[in-house]
Amino acid sequence: MHNIRGLDTDGGEVVRMPDGSGKPRVMNIGLIGFGTVGTAVYQILQQNREELRLQTRVDLRVKRIVVRDLTKPRPVAVAEGLLTDNPQDVLADPEIDIVVEMVGGAHLKPVLLQALASGKAVITANKELIADHGPELFRTAEACDVDLLFEGSVGGGIPILRPLRETLAAGRIRRIMGIVNGTTNYILTQMSREGKSFAAALAEAQLAGYAEADPTADVDGHDAARKLAILATIAFHSRVTTADVYAEGIRRITPADIAYGQQRGWALKLLAIAAQEGEQYEARVHPAFIPATHPLASVNDAFNAIYVHGEEVGETMFYGRGAGGMPTASAVIGDIVEAAKNRRRGVSFSEVQQYNDWSRKEQVRVLSRYYLRVALTQPAAEPAARTLALVGAGAAGEGSQFADGQTSARQAVEHLLPTYGIPVAYLSEYRRPDGTGDLVVETGLTTEGALHTMREVLHGVPGVAAITNIIRILN
Amino acid sequence: MHNIRGLDTDGGEVVRMPDGSGKPRVMNIGLIGFGTVGTAVYQILQQNREELRLQTRVDLRVKRIVVRDLTKPRPVAVAEGLLTDNPQDVLADPEIDIVVEMVGGAHLKPVLLQALASGKAVITANKELIADHGPELFRTAEACDVDLLFEGSVGGGIPILRPLRETLAAGRIRRIMGIVNGTTNYILTQMSREGKSFAAALAEAQLAGYAEADPTADVDGHDAARKLAILATIAFHSRVTTADVYAEGIRRITPADIAYGQQRGWALKLLAIAAQEGEQYEARVHPAFIPATHPLASVNDAFNAIYVHGEEVGETMFYGRGAGGMPTASAVIGDIVEAAKNRRRGVSFSEVQQYNDWSRKEQVRVLSRYYLRVALTQPAAEPAARTLALVGAGAAGEGSQFADGQTSARQAVEHLLPTYGIPVAYLSEYRRPDGTGDLVVETGLTTEGALHTMREVLHGVPGVAAITNIIRILN
Repeated sequence: MHNIRGLDTDGGEVVRMPDGSGKPRVMNIGLIGFGTVGTAVYQILQQNREELRLQTRVDLRVKRIVVRDLTKPRPVAVAEGLLTDNPQDVLADPEIDIVVEMVGGAHLKPVLLQALASGKAVITANKELIADHGPELFRTAEACDVDLLFEGSVGGGIPILRPLRETLAAGRIRRIMGIVNGTTNYILTQMSREGKSFAAALAEAQLAGYAEADPTADVDGHDAARKLAILATIAFHSRVTTADVYAEGIRRITPADIAYGQQRGWALKLLAIAAQEGEQYEARVHPAFIPATHPLASVNDAFNAIYVHGEEVGETMFYGRGAGGMPTASAVIGDIVEAAKNRRRGVSFSEVQQYNDWSRKEQVRVLSRYYLRVALTQPAAEPAARTLALVGAGAAGEGSQFADGQTSARQAVEHLLPTYGIPVAYLSEYRRPDGTGDLVVETGLTTEGALHTMREVLHGVPGVAAITNIIRILN
Repeated sequence: MHNIRGLDTDGGEVVRMPDGSGKPRVMNIGLIGFGTVGTAVYQILQQNREELRLQTRVDLRVKRIVVRDLTKPRPVAVAEGLLTDNPQDVLADPEIDIVVEMVGGAHLKPVLLQALASGKAVITANKELIADHGPELFRTAEACDVDLLFEGSVGGGIPILRPLRETLAAGRIRRIMGIVNGTTNYILTQMSREGKSFAAALAEAQLAGYAEADPTADVDGHDAARKLAILATIAFHSRVTTADVYAEGIRRITPADIAYGQQRGWALKLLAIAAQEGEQYEARVHPAFIPATHPLASVNDAFNAIYVHGEEVGETMFYGRGAGGMPTASAVIGDIVEAAKNRRRGVSFSEVQQYNDWSRKEQVRVLSRYYLRVALTQPAAEPAARTLALVGAGAAGEGSQFADGQTSARQAVEHLLPTYGIPVAYLSEYRRPDGTGDLVVETGLTTEGALHTMREVLHGVPGVAAITNIIRILN
């Protein structure tokens, strides 16, 4: 198999390849899907062909590209006869070695299963499929002795799955925390920097190509939940599906919440968090306030960053472009290189690695600190001239009585929360010119269960109009 | 080869292993070196034995440990008969599959060559050997079809080499910039935070176990140069040895330099930088001022962080513990897992990947901005009462004349530099109560060559006592 050798330059030898004893083996690639990522994969395969040949000792050629609409104009020139709208032109072609699926969506399962069963290596960035049907696909890949690789499904161009799967896999990973959705990070960055509303920032993200026309999967946290399911499954060697991840999106975040948080020295991010203790794990995606000095606070725009804390390795972090054609294509090409090398040697390594059977910790039992924003009605006994300026700030307990001696909504909330087991760490009252206002409460550690109970009760407090928002606070 | 299967929990199946059809293959490990890292490797192999067996489908056992002194007390209990002081007990034992060398130093070359030639996989964290004798070792590994892995040699526990070698390798990597030496980063952190002298911070690092009794390799930049040679070789697919890396250490850095830099909004770090353009590369290790807002500025103590900029992937960053027994051992265990899996399948992937033959850009032609600290003598015509406070700050050109009308050293320097092609971007003069002082100059982009010429000339300027320090400034 060693027909091709890339000789180094040690001892004055000039680089030469092939060495004359043979030609590199040709491997044919079938691309399914030719959108942003698919096009970028095709471009890199063309532009870096010589480098790829030197690295893999294989001549990688794109043989067919499956598209939905043959007549659609394409941003890149593609050789005659390459495009087809029939997936069987790839799946049933015995000359195709590697199938690269860049369509996305769980409905692709039969396509990938057929590719694996036909003995083809499969590369995909299909989060839904890997998160929710991974075990079935992996069993098929292992039974057929072919590779199934999916680095592009999490973190765009950031090499995160292979380090987790290989370099760090032998250690005990305790915690993962990261920003894994570029769209929401872009929106939150815009809201934080410019004070834009969610709707305005979303519209801008759509214009900039960072958000889809239907932004549901991104803004409601489903995309991040899928990615976290994949990360947690690999890290904990225990099956975690999208349904096992608590997911809360960013639709309810307002510039006022962000501004209140900034006054407390916090930044707001949509975080994906998975942690493990004993035989239980927790997995959740939700907006959270983090200290502005935390490294994740400075991960802005469409960038992603993922912290991995392992028993042996301590804290590690991976950062890079979490979205975009070229970065994701870079991860896909890395997978193609691995698959080509393995195939040349006649092996595959897509082995099922889920040997733990851990249960999910109920979300209501997860401990956190919380920011509560409570909308206040006009106080009956107070003048309407109070402004939005800070009225009373400081540790709970100080300044909790107004000059007129009446019990305020603030006092009521402050005394009510501890009776539900919710410590009050900090409390501020803000009033608008019309007399309405916001009570911003920072709680100590409490369970989500306690918070839900309290939520109902607060609605009955005189002077309280509504609980406008509840956002977790992390250190 | 599929005797053992770790079944997932999909469909309610309980994890079971082995599946009854056979026992996992035993692979014997020979450890050479039993210091901090070697001991941690041994501990992880013992503690995580079951997890490692489930992941590799191999039963990994430590058969022998080579130590220098059999009588030395050990922090961990080791089974009778495991220790030996004869390397041949590992190298000549046909039952040993994997050799893990944790001694370090180029003198280990014959040991590793013998291990490879005997068909054993070799895992090492030996920077010197890989940086300077890599090609010879890789040729041997490839010829013998065995793995040679060395993730622990750079960045401690940070998975950096495997992502570079695999995930990112297919793209064109243009630039690497990072903090890769934990000892010097610890010392500079101490100097920056506490205003300590280099000598005091070094002594503290030695006490804390972060610096060796002979700190030369760390503080003079040799260790970082070795790591950069390894990184650049993998990233550029062109041979870069330690001798190809310009290395400048941190011995000449004083708290005054750091303080002057802090006033300008900079942090001081020992950086390892490699960049590529056309068929040339540059590779250098030196202290540098970077903006305090740069993410690398907040990488403190013994942490490491490495930026990789690739044409396709854009900017990525890897962060973690760059030193210490457990983090480095974590990387070594990752390599053991890879070698065990490959060996089980009867393959290896240590292929020579150096197909470029690029030349090094001469260091004198590398462009940079510079901080110059020029020691000033007492000005003859000026009162000695001037203090260390800022006398004149601002863009060059303003306030360059003293009230007495005489040409000052400051003016001379300011006008001399541009005649050597060195733009002056900023200039400040500081005076001590005794009348001596410092002229701090920030240059625009210039070559190192121009700076060397200028250095000689400045010595002749009246009022200039010495060029105390020259430090590069990066954006």
